[in-house]
Amino acid sequence: MPRVMICGDLVWAHKESEELFSGLADVVRMDSANRADFLAGLKPGGKYEGIVGFYRHNVSSAQIGLFDREIIDGLAAAGVKWIAHNGAGYDQIDVLYCKEKGIFVSNTPGAVDDATATTALFLLISALRCFSKAERSVRVGQWKNAHVAGEAHDLTGRTLAILGMGGIGLRLAHLVHAFPMRVIYHNRRKVPHAPEWCEYYGSDRLDEFLASAEVLSVHVPLNVQTTGLVDEKMIRKLPKGAVIVNTARGKVIDEAAMIRALEDGHLGAIGLDVFPDEPQVNPRLFEFPNAALLPHMGTETCDSQKKMEIRALTNLRDFLTKGKGDDLIPEFR
Amino acid sequence: MPRVMICGDLVWAHKESEELFSGLADVVRMDSANRADFLAGLKPGGKYEGIVGFYRHNVSSAQIGLFDREIIDGLAAAGVKWIAHNGAGYDQIDVLYCKEKGIFVSNTPGAVDDATATTALFLLISALRCFSKAERSVRVGQWKNAHVAGEAHDLTGRTLAILGMGGIGLRLAHLVHAFPMRVIYHNRRKVPHAPEWCEYYGSDRLDEFLASAEVLSVHVPLNVQTTGLVDEKMIRKLPKGAVIVNTARGKVIDEAAMIRALEDGHLGAIGLDVFPDEPQVNPRLFEFPNAALLPHMGTETCDSQKKMEIRALTNLRDFLTKGKGDDLIPEFR
Repeated sequence: MPRVMICGDLVWAHKESEELFSGLADVVRMDSANRADFLAGLKPGGKYEGIVGFYRHNVSSAQIGLFDREIIDGLAAAGVKWIAHNGAGYDQIDVLYCKEKGIFVSNTPGAVDDATATTALFLLISALRCFSKAERSVRVGQWKNAHVAGEAHDLTGRTLAILGMGGIGLRLAHLVHAFPMRVIYHNRRKVPHAPEWCEYYGSDRLDEFLASAEVLSVHVPLNVQTTGLVDEKMIRKLPKGAVIVNTARGKVIDEAAMIRALEDGHLGAIGLDVFPDEPQVNPRLFEFPNAALLPHMGTETCDSQKKMEIRALTNLRDFLTKGKGDDLIPEFR
Repeated sequence: MPRVMICGDLVWAHKESEELFSGLADVVRMDSANRADFLAGLKPGGKYEGIVGFYRHNVSSAQIGLFDREIIDGLAAAGVKWIAHNGAGYDQIDVLYCKEKGIFVSNTPGAVDDATATTALFLLISALRCFSKAERSVRVGQWKNAHVAGEAHDLTGRTLAILGMGGIGLRLAHLVHAFPMRVIYHNRRKVPHAPEWCEYYGSDRLDEFLASAEVLSVHVPLNVQTTGLVDEKMIRKLPKGAVIVNTARGKVIDEAAMIRALEDGHLGAIGLDVFPDEPQVNPRLFEFPNAALLPHMGTETCDSQKKMEIRALTNLRDFLTKGKGDDLIPEFR
């Protein structure tokens, strides 16, 4: 029987993992405390010998680090053909090198949409309504003394600009449409299944898109093209008082440029769930009253995490039974 | 020309107030620093003599206090016939005594719906997702160490129980329907204009309503009937782990009973924008990690406050031109 590995904790779907692979594969748990032990285990005669498929969660990086060339070389030599990553973002995996070595990578796109878009909505409300500052104020016995009339705004009728219209962006569009906010989006391509009230702005109209953005919400994956995408130039093209919300990855935004724009009042507020150097957070961000900050809580719900675990496990099972999981990442399509 | 009084600051609608009363009435601003000066001004020969209509904002209570019998006697003797209150809640006015003295009272119901329901949505997300605790954690350099896997939940698919289906409750129903949450409501009467996906529970099914409430959101006005309405008995009928959100008035909930239910884990979380003794907040509330707290920010947006000011002023103008403002409170209907 082939062997598959669970690399990073399963928290919610232990039972399902047994059912999914019953009669199909032996399930091995990664129990290495460090990279050297892990790599040794993959060698012929090692404890992980014969593993063909991999369930991976980012928490495994605490033991064995990022999936860089060294790890991928080890996996390829051991005969691994599929990495079923649990999560929408797979920036911890050198996927282009995986491709070179013949290892496919899937992620769990749909499963994170609801929880992450809800996080973006929360940060959007917090930033526009000055709720983070207000909560800090009431908790130090200052009631709403810190609130400045005129700084808080309704969502209704304002323009939300979605940068990157994948599943999360589209889900956020639906949530804010209830108010409604006006929704505009920029994406490499027009999204055919987006509702007609989502107005598309292509690359030729990027300046116009940015100038209309009362709130810019970032939903692009982190890769070579998107690192530092939201830079000084882009930020300065937003209207004065604009709000930036980021639930994607911290490195998509040039943090220094964003901080300058907060300092000189160009940006009205920010709402961040992600940071360039997690779990470190630039302490300068704590000083802005108009910053709503969360510690990467985007998918931290038991409902969504169970969905994600099952989705990643299902991709791995489909690899065994059909040769291919559903959620192959775009780099492989 | 008749005289009308602006009692409590106009912040956003100065210009509109001039236009609304131009040629209709002289607008007098309340400039009394205390109650004695105010009452003296209403007397024959006083500076407020001849005022027939009143724009009132709660901020005026800092100078002249609540609209109790003493104030209302003074207004009635001066010939005031209409109090156009700015706000949805008018618990600072003894409206039954106003009725006895022949003074009509209007409020600004629709104008607050959007901003208040958005506040309820924010608290609902914060409570279900543990975001208040998470933000406090990241801000003290603890990243998400305080987060307990399994304590955070998605909104989608959960049941929101709306207690009091006025404009704010209905607006909240529409906002959470985007997820969707299941929406049930209890109200004195079935609301004919509520969409069919809002399930009505009458008084005969109140226990069933409470038992189904994964989140109970309070939207009843404060009056004699609703003071302490959400009491020990009601709270204990909620399922274990339920969340209470309150953006109405603090005194609608028995705070001591709520705190006991947080202490023994019957309640999973709370989200409060209002407190029984504002601006005082029971410091015990600060100690619960699973409490999201705002300092009565429900209508604190410049957009909504302008809408409310214009709506209250329009009610006052309509009293002058038509004898009756649109938003007469239910006690007078």
